[in-house]
Amino acid sequence: MAEAEIIAVGSELLTADKIDTNSLWLTAELNGIGIEVVRKIIVGDERTRLSDSVRAAAGRSAIVIVTGGLGPTEDDVTRDAVAAALGRQLIFSEQVSEAIRERFRSFGRKMAEVNKRQAFVIEGAEVLANPRGTAPGQWLDTGTAVIALLPGPPRELMPLFTEKCIPRLRAKFASRVIRTRFFRATGIGEADLDQAIAPVYTRYRNLATTILASHGDLQIHLRAQSDTEAEADRLLDEVGGQILPLLGDKVYSRNGDPLEAVIGAVLRERGQTLTVAESCTGGLLAARITSIPGSSDYFRGGFVTYANETKTSLLGVPADLIAEHTAVSDPAARAMAEGAKRCTRADYALSITGYAGPDGGTAENPVGTVFLGLATPAATDARRLRLPGDRERIRTFTVQYALDMLRHALGI
Amino acid sequence: MAEAEIIAVGSELLTADKIDTNSLWLTAELNGIGIEVVRKIIVGDERTRLSDSVRAAAGRSAIVIVTGGLGPTEDDVTRDAVAAALGRQLIFSEQVSEAIRERFRSFGRKMAEVNKRQAFVIEGAEVLANPRGTAPGQWLDTGTAVIALLPGPPRELMPLFTEKCIPRLRAKFASRVIRTRFFRATGIGEADLDQAIAPVYTRYRNLATTILASHGDLQIHLRAQSDTEAEADRLLDEVGGQILPLLGDKVYSRNGDPLEAVIGAVLRERGQTLTVAESCTGGLLAARITSIPGSSDYFRGGFVTYANETKTSLLGVPADLIAEHTAVSDPAARAMAEGAKRCTRADYALSITGYAGPDGGTAENPVGTVFLGLATPAATDARRLRLPGDRERIRTFTVQYALDMLRHALGI
Repeated sequence: MAEAEIIAVGSELLTADKIDTNSLWLTAELNGIGIEVVRKIIVGDERTRLSDSVRAAAGRSAIVIVTGGLGPTEDDVTRDAVAAALGRQLIFSEQVSEAIRERFRSFGRKMAEVNKRQAFVIEGAEVLANPRGTAPGQWLDTGTAVIALLPGPPRELMPLFTEKCIPRLRAKFASRVIRTRFFRATGIGEADLDQAIAPVYTRYRNLATTILASHGDLQIHLRAQSDTEAEADRLLDEVGGQILPLLGDKVYSRNGDPLEAVIGAVLRERGQTLTVAESCTGGLLAARITSIPGSSDYFRGGFVTYANETKTSLLGVPADLIAEHTAVSDPAARAMAEGAKRCTRADYALSITGYAGPDGGTAENPVGTVFLGLATPAATDARRLRLPGDRERIRTFTVQYALDMLRHALGI
Repeated sequence: MAEAEIIAVGSELLTADKIDTNSLWLTAELNGIGIEVVRKIIVGDERTRLSDSVRAAAGRSAIVIVTGGLGPTEDDVTRDAVAAALGRQLIFSEQVSEAIRERFRSFGRKMAEVNKRQAFVIEGAEVLANPRGTAPGQWLDTGTAVIALLPGPPRELMPLFTEKCIPRLRAKFASRVIRTRFFRATGIGEADLDQAIAPVYTRYRNLATTILASHGDLQIHLRAQSDTEAEADRLLDEVGGQILPLLGDKVYSRNGDPLEAVIGAVLRERGQTLTVAESCTGGLLAARITSIPGSSDYFRGGFVTYANETKTSLLGVPADLIAEHTAVSDPAARAMAEGAKRCTRADYALSITGYAGPDGGTAENPVGTVFLGLATPAATDARRLRLPGDRERIRTFTVQYALDMLRHALGI
């Protein structure tokens, strides 16, 4: 499989505010014709550094895409730097100069002298005419690597790449197909998950596996390369068929949908409804449920009962229950869930009460202790968590555990 | 000025969906102590490529920051690759292993065998203890370059960098003093804000100004470089003294505190309380208010009244009011705020009702229309917003506008 490096040029991309997003789009396009991106480099408008980066990239990878730095000003050094990297000359092109002049003329303007810089072409390069800007692209084949110089603005870059580079790349690099599969799991640690499935995925040469963990949620991306779609899909079926049984009910999604979407789809299908009562998560659970468009079909709404008094006044949690057990307790979680279910006449009610810190907690229930409650049409259940980390981590993990408790109750 | 390269490790960062954002934050931190970022590199979980990149970076720049790839799994190759790049050994550290084991023990879990991978330390490296995760950082000084190995998750990376790396970098490289000032504003666009204050800040040579916009919130960072703290502070006072009057009551924070913290501090000081009733934001407003530790001092709790029926049953919004005006209307927003205030006996109640999309809306009130209500001890007010963008953008901007409405009512 052919390998590409993307070099983005521009000092603004080395500040704290700006990021190179062209490479995401380029990556999708390259992957689409079976080319893998193996390195991305961002350099400033600095001739020597850029030249070094291009030389190194062209020395080790078959494809080098350079974006940006083709403008008319002093700090546009890409043409110069790439020529220097390859030990080639820059040659002034009357034809390109005339095309730029004509472009200005068509807007009723005169070409500025500085724009002549854009008419220099690297010895041996093909010019890629750019109808959307003054900077043409350039295409070079050194024998060991192809190098494309492309303008930075997305509206110039994208059509130039799609129309001029993709056909050239496809012709040169017999393309293979890449197909992907995307599972999600929860209720298992990243290391444990990897330990369980690594013996499977490491056996396959044409498979790339990525495991991403975020707030208790695990994403498993499988990417198979093959000559045909059918063969790539067969490989993914084979690997998935071995991995999924190893993870059992930890896997909740086989298409990448997040937990709140999977739960929502089941509730909608069954015509059932949900409510929540949150203390320490303060609305995060409701916010996550309602991040899904159309969640009003099954989400009745919820309560953020942050003060003990509101647990009593809004949810009917008896004040003496709180006095006896505290608000962070198994009985309080149950009473909150039952109260929320009763008030909204929902089929399911999730409740959360805990100490998110940094202050609060007791000797028995220190910061990080959270009780989840779940009232279903059949029964009420509660669960105690002990979560490490800071306030934000405790809150986001709690939401994940609460949704997972509901998932299991729904039999998903 | 010392020069740094940042290497982000992770095959997911070479896909079409994921981007390295850690480097933005790192860049701001490095710039803050007078260190410039001259190159950013993104490589996959691939030992040889990473090793080559580290060797090249350490050969040309004084500072190399490597993020990610310190996890416990097969595809976490950073320790290995950096050791290989420098021709050093990896040494198993009983002490680090015990610290990881202890971390698992404190959660009532057993360390998996694979986590031992994280206990290997590069010969000559200092271990940077990571209280927020299992992967410790590592700090190496080769004589010509310092190399920091840091975990990828931002919540682990950030404190480790701030607490362990910044002091080491400052001691080794910083020559001049850098002092900063951090204002926050809202209710004004990024371009308008910049246009207003640029005539001031562009006049100063030793001042770097960064404006960051996020969901209607604007951060203005001023960074002054000087030989002495006093001189840098004097410069910041001078610039701040000119900028603040230009922005008037748009500025709500002069120390970087977010809007919800500024409001909370005032409510606490006055002994007043707050409640919320949310429809389309589904808990996001409550979640933001309760992100502040100790918010239970003034936040009574809130309602997520997502279905019309719950607006009536929980908040007492008359069903015929909804029938006449719809739930997304000025009267509904007022009734929600008043209902929430009454139910919780809070001093202030904020309400939100709107169409976050992608579906819903009417000809008169299309997707993006949101009504905010605010009930205070004195009166009830409502406001109509028309917000562009997708569901997530509409929800987050709405929360910002709601908090800003309360800020003005509180006279902040």
